[in-house]
Amino acid sequence: MKAVELRSRDGFGGLAAVERDPPRPGPHDVVVRIRAASLNFRDLAIARGTYGNFPLPIVPLSDGAGEVVEVGDAVTRIRVGDRVCPHYVVDWRSGPPSAEVVARRLGGPLDGVLAELACVPEHAVVRTPAHMSDAEASTLPIAGVTAWQALFVQGRVQPGDVVVVQGTGGVSTFALQLARLAGARVIVTSGSPEKLERARALGAWAGIDYRAHPEWQREVERLTDGRGANHVIDVVGGANVARSVAATCIGGTLSLIGFLDAMRAEIDLPELFRRVISVQAISVGSRAAFEGLAAACEAGELRPVVDRVFPFAEHRAAFEHMAAGRHLGKVVIAID
Amino acid sequence: MKAVELRSRDGFGGLAAVERDPPRPGPHDVVVRIRAASLNFRDLAIARGTYGNFPLPIVPLSDGAGEVVEVGDAVTRIRVGDRVCPHYVVDWRSGPPSAEVVARRLGGPLDGVLAELACVPEHAVVRTPAHMSDAEASTLPIAGVTAWQALFVQGRVQPGDVVVVQGTGGVSTFALQLARLAGARVIVTSGSPEKLERARALGAWAGIDYRAHPEWQREVERLTDGRGANHVIDVVGGANVARSVAATCIGGTLSLIGFLDAMRAEIDLPELFRRVISVQAISVGSRAAFEGLAAACEAGELRPVVDRVFPFAEHRAAFEHMAAGRHLGKVVIAID
Amino acid sequence: MKAVELRSRDGFGGLAAVERDPPRPGPHDVVVRIRAASLNFRDLAIARGTYGNFPLPIVPLSDGAGEVVEVGDAVTRIRVGDRVCPHYVVDWRSGPPSAEVVARRLGGPLDGVLAELACVPEHAVVRTPAHMSDAEASTLPIAGVTAWQALFVQGRVQPGDVVVVQGTGGVSTFALQLARLAGARVIVTSGSPEKLERARALGAWAGIDYRAHPEWQREVERLTDGRGANHVIDVVGGANVARSVAATCIGGTLSLIGFLDAMRAEIDLPELFRRVISVQAISVGSRAAFEGLAAACEAGELRPVVDRVFPFAEHRAAFEHMAAGRHLGKVVIAID
Amino acid sequence: MKAVELRSRDGFGGLAAVERDPPRPGPHDVVVRIRAASLNFRDLAIARGTYGNFPLPIVPLSDGAGEVVEVGDAVTRIRVGDRVCPHYVVDWRSGPPSAEVVARRLGGPLDGVLAELACVPEHAVVRTPAHMSDAEASTLPIAGVTAWQALFVQGRVQPGDVVVVQGTGGVSTFALQLARLAGARVIVTSGSPEKLERARALGAWAGIDYRAHPEWQREVERLTDGRGANHVIDVVGGANVARSVAATCIGGTLSLIGFLDAMRAEIDLPELFRRVISVQAISVGSRAAFEGLAAACEAGELRPVVDRVFPFAEHRAAFEHMAAGRHLGKVVIAID
Repeated sequence: MKAVELRSRDGFGGLAAVERDPPRPGPHDVVVRIRAASLNFRDLAIARGTYGNFPLPIVPLSDGAGEVVEVGDAVTRIRVGDRVCPHYVVDWRSGPPSAEVVARRLGGPLDGVLAELACVPEHAVVRTPAHMSDAEASTLPIAGVTAWQALFVQGRVQPGDVVVVQGTGGVSTFALQLARLAGARVIVTSGSPEKLERARALGAWAGIDYRAHPEWQREVERLTDGRGANHVIDVVGGANVARSVAATCIGGTLSLIGFLDAMRAEIDLPELFRRVISVQAISVGSRAAFEGLAAACEAGELRPVVDRVFPFAEHRAAFEHMAAGRHLGKVVIAID
Repeated sequence: MKAVELRSRDGFGGLAAVERDPPRPGPHDVVVRIRAASLNFRDLAIARGTYGNFPLPIVPLSDGAGEVVEVGDAVTRIRVGDRVCPHYVVDWRSGPPSAEVVARRLGGPLDGVLAELACVPEHAVVRTPAHMSDAEASTLPIAGVTAWQALFVQGRVQPGDVVVVQGTGGVSTFALQLARLAGARVIVTSGSPEKLERARALGAWAGIDYRAHPEWQREVERLTDGRGANHVIDVVGGANVARSVAATCIGGTLSLIGFLDAMRAEIDLPELFRRVISVQAISVGSRAAFEGLAAACEAGELRPVVDRVFPFAEHRAAFEHMAAGRHLGKVVIAID
Repeated sequence: MKAVELRSRDGFGGLAAVERDPPRPGPHDVVVRIRAASLNFRDLAIARGTYGNFPLPIVPLSDGAGEVVEVGDAVTRIRVGDRVCPHYVVDWRSGPPSAEVVARRLGGPLDGVLAELACVPEHAVVRTPAHMSDAEASTLPIAGVTAWQALFVQGRVQPGDVVVVQGTGGVSTFALQLARLAGARVIVTSGSPEKLERARALGAWAGIDYRAHPEWQREVERLTDGRGANHVIDVVGGANVARSVAATCIGGTLSLIGFLDAMRAEIDLPELFRRVISVQAISVGSRAAFEGLAAACEAGELRPVVDRVFPFAEHRAAFEHMAAGRHLGKVVIAID
Repeated sequence: MKAVELRSRDGFGGLAAVERDPPRPGPHDVVVRIRAASLNFRDLAIARGTYGNFPLPIVPLSDGAGEVVEVGDAVTRIRVGDRVCPHYVVDWRSGPPSAEVVARRLGGPLDGVLAELACVPEHAVVRTPAHMSDAEASTLPIAGVTAWQALFVQGRVQPGDVVVVQGTGGVSTFALQLARLAGARVIVTSGSPEKLERARALGAWAGIDYRAHPEWQREVERLTDGRGANHVIDVVGGANVARSVAATCIGGTLSLIGFLDAMRAEIDLPELFRRVISVQAISVGSRAAFEGLAAACEAGELRPVVDRVFPFAEHRAAFEHMAAGRHLGKVVIAID
């Protein structure tokens, strides 16, 4: 089967198309013919050597979608022909995370999905929402599940809540669409008027241009009659976290999800106490969370935002496109 | 001011239009010029003597909407001119219920809102959603808050969940609209094909005619690929509760809200254990719940279903219309 | 290895001591040398043919304790020599229950632990609390986990809460000890003054003799200054459930766990609404719940109450002793 | 009546004993004859001008206990002679905090309890645990309620959990005693071997001397077999928060309560994500929380740790004693 291997940690030059033996499933495994895979910043960081130190080579990418082509002898949950997505944190089925279940992850340390075939335990796949293409479904495992986990598993967004999402990256765009689906009012911050326009087309209630309003939290305050948002999703880190705290209402929730800007967050304690905020660290979710997301997407006919689909042969260009940061929505590689 | 008094407990004949002195607010009170009031079964039961034994006469009806025309000296939350709804359980502001806060209720033992003016503590009013007429808003305090409490305060309905509502009465119709607003799939049961049609127009995902399918829970099972619904809202009681249990998925929630059929519920224990169901008794909600409902209605531009608006002079006809049971949505009395 | 088989469903005569081949572990399995096994009503019901219809023969009993004597090639969590208890619901690791994880159970349909050796997946064992003997630890898997699930997973008992437990069976005795450990005040009901005395020795705050007080819920009301208990654990079913409802405070929790008396529960709806009670069905728990229980037992040096330990050769007498119903605490069989 | 007034913000010299007219209760108020009042850092900061800018003079101190000597005409909850503690956040009765209920606080902006008589709304008092002296009960309103809120309202400590408390100040000592009461294992950090000894006498499971182990989190890791604590209560702020994060287990809870060291907290995001920690800001609690605390104290016969009781005339010495920081437990002023 054809596959890509990451052979070194010095950038995207370490990626190489190779031929591998097809996987042979154990009794509880299924083999998925991957049709599309999507990129996350994790994949860029692994290729650049700034994240993870798994033994190489590995097949990169954690997020994919396709159909089952072979099942082990003891498999009962899944049949050949089922359209599925492998679950990124392979052994985290439900409930809160634990050391035991969070270790094995696709795309490192386990082989990922940038290959014709991926072999995973039967307990580690989720049925693809029927209305989605494989390219669309391939965006769900990290970006979609992370947004779902923040809003509906660790958080509890309800109709009428005000939710702030920052930028228009993968998690933020899913958070916008999912919070909207749940009846919330979503405020999007961005440095680009075009992206704000696009966010409004996706259902945002308001947009804040943080170039025009560097103290964007004051705009949130203004838009909410001084109360602040019920839920703020911070993907930036650093000094932005202090702004996120100030944008959150008394008793509200602040989800920390990323560190686009800085690996540290500074929090002003008196402000945090004054607002009695719950701050929750989000790190993807269980298979049950993924199944909840899939059911929500089907019920709401949510269509993930795909920025661009690259053919398999141009996988390196896909990494470079994502690294350039001009995408809105997810970058996908088709594996035909 | 003009008002209606309930003077006896022998039926709607005990209702009488009267002239009363206008209320004089204490320092923490506000006076609301009621423009519309809506009926609940509670009001019928009180008039018939089957519920409550408060000293008479009282002004009936708990649910109304209007604008503030006078405020006490110490009032800070509310101003003259604000459009508000009095909160039915006057002293229940937030948090779980307690004996201390659930005693004082509008429409008995306290005077209700079927009057030109109602005087309530400033802490006991909620701002009317801006897009609603007073007639629409007058339907919120019991029916709307009860549905909200079941789905979002004691329950936790999320996008993609399947919710079953029974019939098209006030609470069930709100539950349909609110669950839909939250991204859920709603199944409505009814004995009337016309009402099922109407429910579909309001966003129901499926309808079940319980005359054609007396074992309606089997249809729920079929519609959910054998899993059952995440949340069932039972307003019937009696033998129907056993069906509701059988319609609920493993780990699901059953909200008991009414007893249209019987004052007792029979529960088959092995079935309950097999499904590990949580059964929650719902009895309206706090002012915070009402505020959550109001925010959700505004965000989703939800319009309550008003069956018919009667003029003040025909208030007794409104009671009789509701008692006849052919309404779909709420029965309202305008107080001009 | 020696083992007991259940060969027919016509009573304890269907139990037979046999010699079986020792189990051969798969790559993810461990083999446990069982030293003690404890009985539950489930085991009696299976032997009598009133519960379950698994293919026979099976090795009976779900609850045991011993040490690991062999592990499969891929096992990493567990080592030879570890003292462990197999987890009754083998695949339920954490989170809420689902159809997928609740099917496989020890003692039917899977072979149980009344044998020298039991082979289970490595994910399905819990470390034995260090201070417990194997006889003591063998009482944990159903009775202990069920009490823990009711009080701390689905419920949320806190210091100062009042908890009512009914009788002195396995679950009720654990609930008494665990609620006490959590700082709660425990009221025990029983028909036997001797058992009430024993319950007080185990830490009960008060006892109610239901022969002297058939309307025992009034005694709960009296003991709690009219408020009722925060949490009532009903193991009886039938008409007793109505009393349990009346013994629960406003906003309190009623856990339904058993049906010693009747398979149906009758609930008075107005009373349920007046108290706004949450009723939760309890059906054991996940391995994570078992681990929580084990940690609590260690921290509090809780010693399970063992009524009597029978030698392996007298296993049938153990069933008969339990059936006679005069035990207080758990009935154990030693497997030396 | 005699009282103390704070007349300036330049230190404890601004405190002056005065004679004031006795308060006259409104219809819903009660007058409490204060017998003891306890100090918090808030009181020191207000006197020093580093916190709050309420109009002066005010009667200082938020925490007191005594008995009711007069009630307004409309009072029903409370009778003359009841032993009570005023609730610090006067209008926060139950549920989550909101801007509406957190504004009015005793000891600033409202007059506090360092006076013979304090007049508060009837809804703002809690019955004193029967086994406590007034000096003991006077320590509950801020320190006790804050610890309760962290562990049992926003948090959910259970038997067997490991809880870390830092130092032996008021909140930390209550957290130690309450977590112990709930069956948890408590680890105390301190720079003083004597205080660690004292903590062990109060029930601590382990003590860590942070002078001997500046990276105290590693000791927590060691004591918990590498897992970390379920709940860490940080009262220090600044760089200590990073250590608290590293001392918390996967899925654990970190309560931020104070800022003895610094007003800012620095959080390492990858570490926070790796552990999927919930960080909760704690800022006292509702009257319902106080009632929960009082019930727990009664059930467990918990005795607050009183460092020293100063007579009324030496109130300034009490402030100075607390400022010197050598106390263990609470500093109390008796008002005879």
